[in-house]
Formats: sequence, structure tokens, C-alpha cells
Amino acid sequence: MTTPNVALAVSTVIFAARNTGPDGRKELWLPLVRRIRDPFRGLWALPGGPLKPDEDLEDSAARSLHLTTGLQPGYLEQLYAFGGLTRSANADERVVSIVYWASLCADQASELHPDLNVAWLRVDELPPLAFDHSGIVDYALYRLRNKITYSRVAHSFLGETFTLAELRDVHEAILGTPLDPANFRRQVLASGAVLDTGTRLEGTRHRPPRLYRYNTDLDLADRDPAGRTTQEQT
Amino acid sequence: MTTPNVALAVSTVIFAARNTGPDGRKELWLPLVRRIRDPFRGLWALPGGPLKPDEDLEDSAARSLHLTTGLQPGYLEQLYAFGGLTRSANADERVVSIVYWASLCADQASELHPDLNVAWLRVDELPPLAFDHSGIVDYALYRLRNKITYSRVAHSFLGETFTLAELRDVHEAILGTPLDPANFRRQVLASGAVLDTGTRLEGTRHRPPRLYRYNTDLDLADRDPAGRTTQEQT
Repeated sequence: MTTPNVALAVSTVIFAARNTGPDGRKELWLPLVRRIRDPFRGLWALPGGPLKPDEDLEDSAARSLHLTTGLQPGYLEQLYAFGGLTRSANADERVVSIVYWASLCADQASELHPDLNVAWLRVDELPPLAFDHSGIVDYALYRLRNKITYSRVAHSFLGETFTLAELRDVHEAILGTPLDPANFRRQVLASGAVLDTGTRLEGTRHRPPRLYRYNTDLDLADRDPAGRTTQEQT
Repeated sequence: MTTPNVALAVSTVIFAARNTGPDGRKELWLPLVRRIRDPFRGLWALPGGPLKPDEDLEDSAARSLHLTTGLQPGYLEQLYAFGGLTRSANADERVVSIVYWASLCADQASELHPDLNVAWLRVDELPPLAFDHSGIVDYALYRLRNKITYSRVAHSFLGETFTLAELRDVHEAILGTPLDPANFRRQVLASGAVLDTGTRLEGTRHRPPRLYRYNTDLDLADRDPAGRTTQEQT
């Protein structure tokens, strides 16, 4: 059952929505690792590495996320196994990569990592990445954009409570398009996906906006093969 | 980058809807392979095997499908990579299985395979399978049942043309529940997913039913990472 010429790696596409846009609006960022050796030396690549024999796939993805960002994922899901014959630049080696995608809460993601070979890059302005990683990021974005329309995944980019404006801001950052505030508000409230916490955003405003939390009684989420619903994972 | 203690396998969950139910209605079947050695000797398992170093993942899945059934898939999609630490019965070996799921046209699936260690079993009556394969089949069914509501996947269980009754029959076999014929007809026609071929089912009936084909102009399908839409694949 051994396949001596095929190496197995786990990589993770990590998204966070940070308040870096005009008027503090959210933009989508991801952390990447600069390659310090050939092939693709100097180019940015997805964090990851060989699967350890004694490590679960998801644990491996969470570990590389933690090593890269110092953080725990808000959401972590298997994306796809990439195994094309020509995806390694080295003809002697074939690498099959099982790729996860993850989201982080924006407040955490603003912390900088001490390693100079790790950087947060804006999704809209990515340079060509090492290996087939540009295509993998595109596919992760496609999955994220699909998923946000029917699941609670937007929640994982925010803290425990949030205003409807913050939730809309995450949707806009992911979809890359402005949404009508009144329509968004009506649809979200009608879906039953969020609950009014009864509290309001603290601050100096005359009418501070209400804070909501996700309705965890409502199973909007996908099921993964272990039967868990894919929401908060540690 | 090598992971010497981890073997990589590709397995395939293959579904076909055959006219074996009451009044010739369709039921969901899948081909399985009887294990002739330990562990799990005598139990049924998913077709598959080690990934060949020079073989694409999807090609490997299609090959095991062809070896098992003598057929080509109507639809083939990556399901999930299963890599838990305890999924092999042998403590010295860890197997990560990249699992695909596939559908076959029912007419082809009625052909029997000459190998006595391959058999078609009814999904509703599966015995416990080897390894974690029972859970994998459950997850493939979950994916199939979700997918049939928003994609053209039902098409792949039928021939090029079909009646609306046949299409409903496939949906009922997959969902495991009867559907109201008038509602189903109205929803399918309103969706634009099928086109009237202008011909009718040949036979002796006074008013033979119309034959439809899928509207391939309409992209109801998922995209896979290579940017193909997942419909007819050869």
C-alpha cells in the first residue's frame, strides 16, 4: 500500500477581514510564507508542510495556521486534495496536497507575526504565488463566496457579538460588491440566523447600534464527514 | 517532503439507480468489493487502491470504477480526503484515502461483473462495511442528497433523454421519499433545467410521454478547482 514517490502535504488558505479599506471598511487578507529556497525562491506560498505520520489532517492544518499566525482558526474546513502530476516543479517528486481553508477573527488578525518571512497580503492584490497556489487561493475564494450565501461562515470573521453593519461589511469584503443596507438587514433578520443580544455597541454615539449574535439553534452549516457541523472549532 | 509511514489510496463510492423497486421504480445501488484477506476478510469494501505515482487522482478513481464495473462514470467528483489516525486496522500503517463519488447510467449498471468478489448491493440494505467505509458511504449519500437539489447531477443517472417521470423517479430514489408529480413537474420546467426534445417515448401507449434532455446552456453545476463544471465527464 506504500506509494514511495508520492509525498503528502497539508496546506491552509487562511482568510481574515480587516478594517483597512476606505472609511475603515473591511478587506480580505491572507497570510503567506516567503519561500527561502528553490523552487520558487522568494515567491509567496501557502503555509503548510508534510503530513506528520502521527497527526490528523485537520490538526496538521490547524498547526500550520498557528505556526504562521500565532492564532487559532475561527472556522476550518477541508477544501480539496490537489494531486496533479505536474504540480511540483521537481520532476523526481510528486506532492499531493490536502488543502484546508480557514477564517480568523479580524481583531486577532491585526497582530503582526515576528517572522519576516510571513506577511499578510491583500487578496485583491496578490502577486503570482509559488507552485499552483494562485489557483488554490482562487478556488478557496470561490468556495467562500458560495458558502457565505447559505451558511454561518461570516460569523467566524467577527467576534462573538456584532452589529448588522459589521456583518454586512464582512459579506461585502468577501463578495467584493456593495450590498443594499436595508435589503441586507431585512434578509438577515428574516432568516432567523442572528439574534438580538439586547445590548448595544458601547461608544459615544447618540443611538448606538444593536449587537447581534448568531443563532446557534439554527443549523445553517454544512456537515463534515464526522457529523460535526462546521462552525466554531478550536 | 516524504512521509514514509503514510500510504495514499484513492477509493470511489459509485451510485446507480436501478429499476428494481415495486412497479419497476428506481432504487439506489452501489458496487462493492469483497475483501479476500485480513483485515476485515469477507467484508465488503469500496473499490480502490494505492495511488500510482504516475496517475492523476481523478484518473485513479475512474480506473477503479472501470475495473470494478467495466463502465465509465456519468459523473465523478472528489468527495473528501479521510485521514484519521485510527482508520487502518493495522497499527504499523496509516492510510489516507482520497475518496471520489461517481454515478452511472442505470442501463449500464444492470450488467453483472464476472468477478464473484464484486457485487451490487442496495444502499438501503448495506451490511457493515470494512474499515470506515460505512461512514464514507453515509457521507457520500449526504452529499448526493444535498447536491441533487441544486445541480444537474440527477441527469447522470439517466440516459441522454428521459421522461419527467424517470427524472422524478431518480430524485425519489436518492431522497428516499415520494415527490408530488405535479409539483415536481412544475418546478423542473420552471427551473429551465430541462428542454423538450420534441420526441416522445416509443412504445405502445396511447399517449406516450415527452422526452426531455438537460439544458446544457444552464450552468447549475458546481465548479471544480480546474474550472471545469462538473457534468458529463468521460
